[in-house]
Amino acid sequence: MLGENLQIGLAGLGTVGSGVYEALLRNRDILEARAQISYEVRRVAVRDKKRRRSVELAPGVLTEDWRELVEDDQIDIIIELIGGITEAYDLVRAALEKGKPVVTGNKALLAEHGNTLFRLSQEKGVPLYFEASCGGGIPIVRSLQNSLICNNVSAIVGIINGTSNYILTAMATEALPYHEALRQAQQLGYAESDPTLDINGWDAAYKGLILAMLAYGTPLRPETISVTGIEQVEPVDFTFARQLGYTIKLLVVIRHHQERKALELRVQPSFVPQQHLLSKVEGVFNAIAVRGDLVGETIFYGRGAGKNPTSSAVVSDVVLAMRECRLQGYHTGFQPYTQEVQVLPVEETVTPCYVRFRVKDCHGVIASIAAAFSRHDVGISATSSADGEHEGGKTEWNHLVFMLHACPWGQLQKALDEIRQLDTVVADPVVLRIETFQGT
Amino acid sequence: MLGENLQIGLAGLGTVGSGVYEALLRNRDILEARAQISYEVRRVAVRDKKRRRSVELAPGVLTEDWRELVEDDQIDIIIELIGGITEAYDLVRAALEKGKPVVTGNKALLAEHGNTLFRLSQEKGVPLYFEASCGGGIPIVRSLQNSLICNNVSAIVGIINGTSNYILTAMATEALPYHEALRQAQQLGYAESDPTLDINGWDAAYKGLILAMLAYGTPLRPETISVTGIEQVEPVDFTFARQLGYTIKLLVVIRHHQERKALELRVQPSFVPQQHLLSKVEGVFNAIAVRGDLVGETIFYGRGAGKNPTSSAVVSDVVLAMRECRLQGYHTGFQPYTQEVQVLPVEETVTPCYVRFRVKDCHGVIASIAAAFSRHDVGISATSSADGEHEGGKTEWNHLVFMLHACPWGQLQKALDEIRQLDTVVADPVVLRIETFQGT
Repeated sequence: MLGENLQIGLAGLGTVGSGVYEALLRNRDILEARAQISYEVRRVAVRDKKRRRSVELAPGVLTEDWRELVEDDQIDIIIELIGGITEAYDLVRAALEKGKPVVTGNKALLAEHGNTLFRLSQEKGVPLYFEASCGGGIPIVRSLQNSLICNNVSAIVGIINGTSNYILTAMATEALPYHEALRQAQQLGYAESDPTLDINGWDAAYKGLILAMLAYGTPLRPETISVTGIEQVEPVDFTFARQLGYTIKLLVVIRHHQERKALELRVQPSFVPQQHLLSKVEGVFNAIAVRGDLVGETIFYGRGAGKNPTSSAVVSDVVLAMRECRLQGYHTGFQPYTQEVQVLPVEETVTPCYVRFRVKDCHGVIASIAAAFSRHDVGISATSSADGEHEGGKTEWNHLVFMLHACPWGQLQKALDEIRQLDTVVADPVVLRIETFQGT
Repeated sequence: MLGENLQIGLAGLGTVGSGVYEALLRNRDILEARAQISYEVRRVAVRDKKRRRSVELAPGVLTEDWRELVEDDQIDIIIELIGGITEAYDLVRAALEKGKPVVTGNKALLAEHGNTLFRLSQEKGVPLYFEASCGGGIPIVRSLQNSLICNNVSAIVGIINGTSNYILTAMATEALPYHEALRQAQQLGYAESDPTLDINGWDAAYKGLILAMLAYGTPLRPETISVTGIEQVEPVDFTFARQLGYTIKLLVVIRHHQERKALELRVQPSFVPQQHLLSKVEGVFNAIAVRGDLVGETIFYGRGAGKNPTSSAVVSDVVLAMRECRLQGYHTGFQPYTQEVQVLPVEETVTPCYVRFRVKDCHGVIASIAAAFSRHDVGISATSSADGEHEGGKTEWNHLVFMLHACPWGQLQKALDEIRQLDTVVADPVVLRIETFQGT
């Protein structure tokens, strides 16, 4: 036992905040035995003291001003779980300035202000821990930082948004249309009433950015990541995918092009080969595949969100913070080390692709599209078609699918711009990357 | 940078030893940048100095006496990779006594002498790191110790022997007989010339014992684990398994019966439902599913053996050892904390089972076997049969399969003892557990 009673300040008592508070209380015995620590939650900052809560707190513990936690000289460690960006930034900054280690699960904060905060952490010698910011209960942050420390990471490919994976799984297995799958996810509490960031890919992008910063030690801006959401995917795409030996997942892809000192950074709905384990990750579960030069392919799988899994990650950081906070400047929090990389423009990223057009049911359609691809040096590996269906009846257009050989994204876009002009093509094409896991 | 140049003593320069030596040299830039350390491999102990090696060492670095490493006051950290038990035990003991942190990947050593060595480590305040002892490059040791520290672990179910998984995969996918699959594994270098410990389950048992010690903090002896190897499994079992919705894997199962303060500890070839991710783990890959009260189910997947993946784990420990070795007694090496548990006798463990008999092709066989099961209160959920085949011809006996409801192992054995007496049963039955992953 370290002897002294470490004092924790907890900011935020929402779903995760109350989960953390409960976990610190309920599993105190194993934490004290395993980590040889002893602790107290001294103050809890909330927005509204009067709100009814599931956890009971002693009088005097609650405050509506997080500054009281930062200013309290008795408090050793701050947990930031208030969410949002502006106030969370002020809080984390103030705590680090005061020399108090911070534990946070705030991915938007780190994606937007990580560079500044990590620099401040480094200057002050005060650690910032953030296991809960990526993959919920999956220990991917610590594994990248410590366990795989000796590896040159060539690629990270992950399913790291549970809501969108739930929707895609429901569309794949129950043949639900997108909006019905979303409604089901909302009814089950797997999607927020405003699911925008889950659906448009930005939640996954924030997490991907953090993983890339960890793996390459380098400051990165959210603007550099190419992001496409899942709204365009339709049930018929799952039918084609299955026939062709794939399933559809929203993937974050981080790939290191060592010879070019460049990083590929993108989030897109993608074809995943049915043989690859990531294709079997269903519902709200997350999984992250990491390829290192020594370790080869590793995969980390688990619940990427939710009160308890996220609390598991937050508390593991709190334990580390408690163990390290008396070691005079030593800590295992992340320190940027700036590996020399720049982000590859998305136009230069190369993958095979699946493209589905809606075309008029007439002769010469395949020939005219194929000719446009050919003019732009985009190779075709296969084509497939299906009747269009609308409320059970046949439509006047058909689905026409092209499987394309690997080519630069920019080149494909030029071909598609030309194809969009054809009057036989009746709607914007659906374009999905095909993830081959080469070098992953 | 910590400034000072830490000095490493490496004992053993076999496959993993030379991999570690090469990794420390080749990836020095990322290690120094990420961990802010600087180091030298000062001495390397080998059995025979004159043997030709793939790695080149400066004169004076090699020695045939590991004691020179332990006695060298300049050496800060010892890496034990000599293998075996007796000498490795002397080496680790001597190093800990001398106050030198030790990194080892020696599972047999830890399974046999872990209790003594962990106690010594605790008494001396000198850490013993062993990430490489379980699951090769998969960071399962550190994840159990740190990332999942806040969880009451209810179950660990894993595929943690690559050789046997390669053999079972080849039997399942190529319908190879056991001995041919083994020969193929040996030709590809996935099985030793003497594969006994891989095949009979003891390699997996050693690793399972270490995982159980980590999860429950408690001293455990290898004798307490119930171990069955894969030699009994035949191609026909894979056919039945597939028809019934399963595949066959050698599993280590650790299950905590909280109310009884008891641990279930066993290694057995088992039916794994085709829906569960572990059923998709093929070839030499390993995967470990851990269920905690907060985190739910997590799975860790990767290469469980081999020069580079194992080196990845060893070096991650070496980095930790280097970072922690100047912190005056602080370290994150494992410390037993003795959760109160005892091992459940295997007779009291309860699972559904698959039992295959070879029976004479005559009337009343099913009835007589079913009657014996019934007398011992063993419920039958399904039966199935297939003609016996031998070198293409039909035999005089048939395969008869019973799927049994969950019942205590001891009760099943009594029923089987009675059934073995029937003169219609011509060979010892093949009994495989059915893993339901309830509570996993």
